[in-house]
Amino acid sequence: MRMYDIIEKKRNGYPLSEEEIRFFIQGYTDGTIPDYQASALCMAIYFRGMDDKEISILTDAMAHSGDTVDLSRFGNLSADKHSTGGVGDKTSLIVIPVVASLGAKLAKMSGRGLGHTGGTVDKLESIPGYETAMDGDTFMRQVEEVGLAIVGQSGNLTPADKKLYALRDVTATVDSIPLITSSIMSKKLAAGAHNIVLDVKVGSGAFMKTPQQARELAVKMVTIGKLCGRNMAAVLSNMDVPLGTHIGNALEVKEALGVLRGEIHNDLREVCEVLASNLIAMVLDIPLEDAEVRVKEAIDSGAAYQKMREWIEAQGGDVRYIDDPSLFPNSKICYQVLSPRDGYIEAMDAEAIGLASVMLGAGRERKEDPIDYAAGIVLCKKVGDYVRGGERLCLFYTDRENAPDSAEKKYLSALTFGDEKPLEKPLIYEVIH
Amino acid sequence: MRMYDIIEKKRNGYPLSEEEIRFFIQGYTDGTIPDYQASALCMAIYFRGMDDKEISILTDAMAHSGDTVDLSRFGNLSADKHSTGGVGDKTSLIVIPVVASLGAKLAKMSGRGLGHTGGTVDKLESIPGYETAMDGDTFMRQVEEVGLAIVGQSGNLTPADKKLYALRDVTATVDSIPLITSSIMSKKLAAGAHNIVLDVKVGSGAFMKTPQQARELAVKMVTIGKLCGRNMAAVLSNMDVPLGTHIGNALEVKEALGVLRGEIHNDLREVCEVLASNLIAMVLDIPLEDAEVRVKEAIDSGAAYQKMREWIEAQGGDVRYIDDPSLFPNSKICYQVLSPRDGYIEAMDAEAIGLASVMLGAGRERKEDPIDYAAGIVLCKKVGDYVRGGERLCLFYTDRENAPDSAEKKYLSALTFGDEKPLEKPLIYEVIH
Repeated sequence: MRMYDIIEKKRNGYPLSEEEIRFFIQGYTDGTIPDYQASALCMAIYFRGMDDKEISILTDAMAHSGDTVDLSRFGNLSADKHSTGGVGDKTSLIVIPVVASLGAKLAKMSGRGLGHTGGTVDKLESIPGYETAMDGDTFMRQVEEVGLAIVGQSGNLTPADKKLYALRDVTATVDSIPLITSSIMSKKLAAGAHNIVLDVKVGSGAFMKTPQQARELAVKMVTIGKLCGRNMAAVLSNMDVPLGTHIGNALEVKEALGVLRGEIHNDLREVCEVLASNLIAMVLDIPLEDAEVRVKEAIDSGAAYQKMREWIEAQGGDVRYIDDPSLFPNSKICYQVLSPRDGYIEAMDAEAIGLASVMLGAGRERKEDPIDYAAGIVLCKKVGDYVRGGERLCLFYTDRENAPDSAEKKYLSALTFGDEKPLEKPLIYEVIH
Repeated sequence: MRMYDIIEKKRNGYPLSEEEIRFFIQGYTDGTIPDYQASALCMAIYFRGMDDKEISILTDAMAHSGDTVDLSRFGNLSADKHSTGGVGDKTSLIVIPVVASLGAKLAKMSGRGLGHTGGTVDKLESIPGYETAMDGDTFMRQVEEVGLAIVGQSGNLTPADKKLYALRDVTATVDSIPLITSSIMSKKLAAGAHNIVLDVKVGSGAFMKTPQQARELAVKMVTIGKLCGRNMAAVLSNMDVPLGTHIGNALEVKEALGVLRGEIHNDLREVCEVLASNLIAMVLDIPLEDAEVRVKEAIDSGAAYQKMREWIEAQGGDVRYIDDPSLFPNSKICYQVLSPRDGYIEAMDAEAIGLASVMLGAGRERKEDPIDYAAGIVLCKKVGDYVRGGERLCLFYTDRENAPDSAEKKYLSALTFGDEKPLEKPLIYEVIH
């Protein structure tokens, strides 16, 4: 078998066989197939696409290109939740303890933030003592006893995807539905959970800018996950504005705690309820309506909050911060951004707001950059709110003396004002099963 | 400027700017742009194409990526002839002395053969003493005094094309009209001639299998050559069968000499007349009908033959072989291939016949293989001829004792017999100006 023939076959619009796809992934992972042939194939796939059978084989081949996590001991209770990434997206910090409190088992490896979106591991590290590295046995024991554990990525999971994604990133072959699907789903398959809920973000702050694009990706991921033997659901949620009000690592932990304590009832809680209900319906094999009731109860009864406390403690975190979030250290500077005019906020560019928070120290521009856990933004006004000139739009928290000026310019450039109250966009576009 | 953006722009179907194309070619030639980005761009060009402006800039950028030959001293008299490659294609050995005898100046660097087609330099080296390496001054002086010189490729001509062609060859991006056009035409531009005739081969023994494909390529090459300031013509000629009757290095020199002496009047002579007439019409700026008359006269008067003799002598070749071709050494084995049945020869696969001649030692399977100058095939029957079972189809010449058996199998597999005389296909499909 020759890689040349595989490229030519896809270029000419024919589906690749299982043998051809596995030959490509194995050869590319072990280095016998060079980058220049892999990039040519990716571009041919960009133009010619792949059918569901091809994508599911590609996904499976990438999932098995390295280590895989075996969660079979948890039977049908193992669960996972994945977000395509958004600004102020702290849903994992809420959904995971909620579903764990209802009996699901979540052994989660999570990433760090880069660019305008944050990473769950960074957020958890803002809690003093929280351990994001753990040996495999301890990790599994905690999942068994507590119901959940979240650690940083380790081991050699999906090396084919790592290598291929890095190549696609520099050859303009990222935005291809078959390649995005196989990249995301191969990591989910390797992570081992039997039930998976996907949070597919739509809008200015997300990779998918329109509901149509997001829907296409979500349907494909659900289809491929099912073909690979998993229970799947995907929620299309709005990311035209940041989710909730807090952006920044410790700030997002505080907001998540507020939701789990039943103090906050906002768009964040709503998205978390939809994600948790869909996941728990699959885990417990119960109707969605029943799952919705149980999820609300888990929050309102304090059970989910207790699960969070138990989890943080098990993982070495200082639970005094969970009991009293005012203990989190404050930034040196608290800066108010005031409205330049009267009017309704018509739109917010979530990506630009995420970048403003990076300027304040809350995120990384490069992988090796340090993070200021206290830094970030608290939104006081969101899309649809009416503001008067001089009224407070948001608060910046930072230790960087010169940061607020440029971050304010970025922030204000992200807002569109108007005289009419804008039409409300849905928070949840659709749930795909 | 970033290569990523250039790939993405072409992928999205937009024409590239002059600056972008030159950035790519310069960066790829000097190694700052890696193979994996270049192959992704080539695949995007395969799908999206390029407009004439883009192709002419790409061609010019590649032509100027290394050394160029300056033929300005010859004014409008400089001429070049290029064939897309065929089996038994010895037209250069005839066309070049013909047009030189009529006043054109040809400073030609030619290639060696590989696979099923031969190279002009290999053919000339079958003449004892012929020097295919020459310093630049001697080369130019010979062109000035004799009117022509043919040497092997030397110097650093079109390094961008060499590197890009090698990459396309392993990434299934060869058959793209914009990329083929810029590859061929960049070499022609760098070679410096003001008047260029292209022999675009069509059929089983050629890269272009149908007249439609060949026409598309020919029109594009003519258009691009003109946009780059050259006089252009392209002849679409049949390569369903080998051209002439002789295949093999010394054998082809002998057949060419037969045409130049006026002894042979076959398809080979006809194609050569069309090529030479179209070239000389441009060089002398005369009507094609006048050029046709002059070309016939040049052959029939012996002027072209004398020009060949003068040229071979100037370049160190032993002219006794030109005067008496029977002096060329003979192969140890002369093997007759007999017809397995009665019938008309309906078709011949020229590529397979070329490969049979390689088996006999006449060509190279790998670049480093030696060549047996005497080896080859002389066709006794071609398409449209009627043969009886046991009648001679062709003669094999070789020094390899075991070669005739397998070459005969190959040769017979290339023939299709039938009971009806097949419809004649045109020898010349079209001339594009």
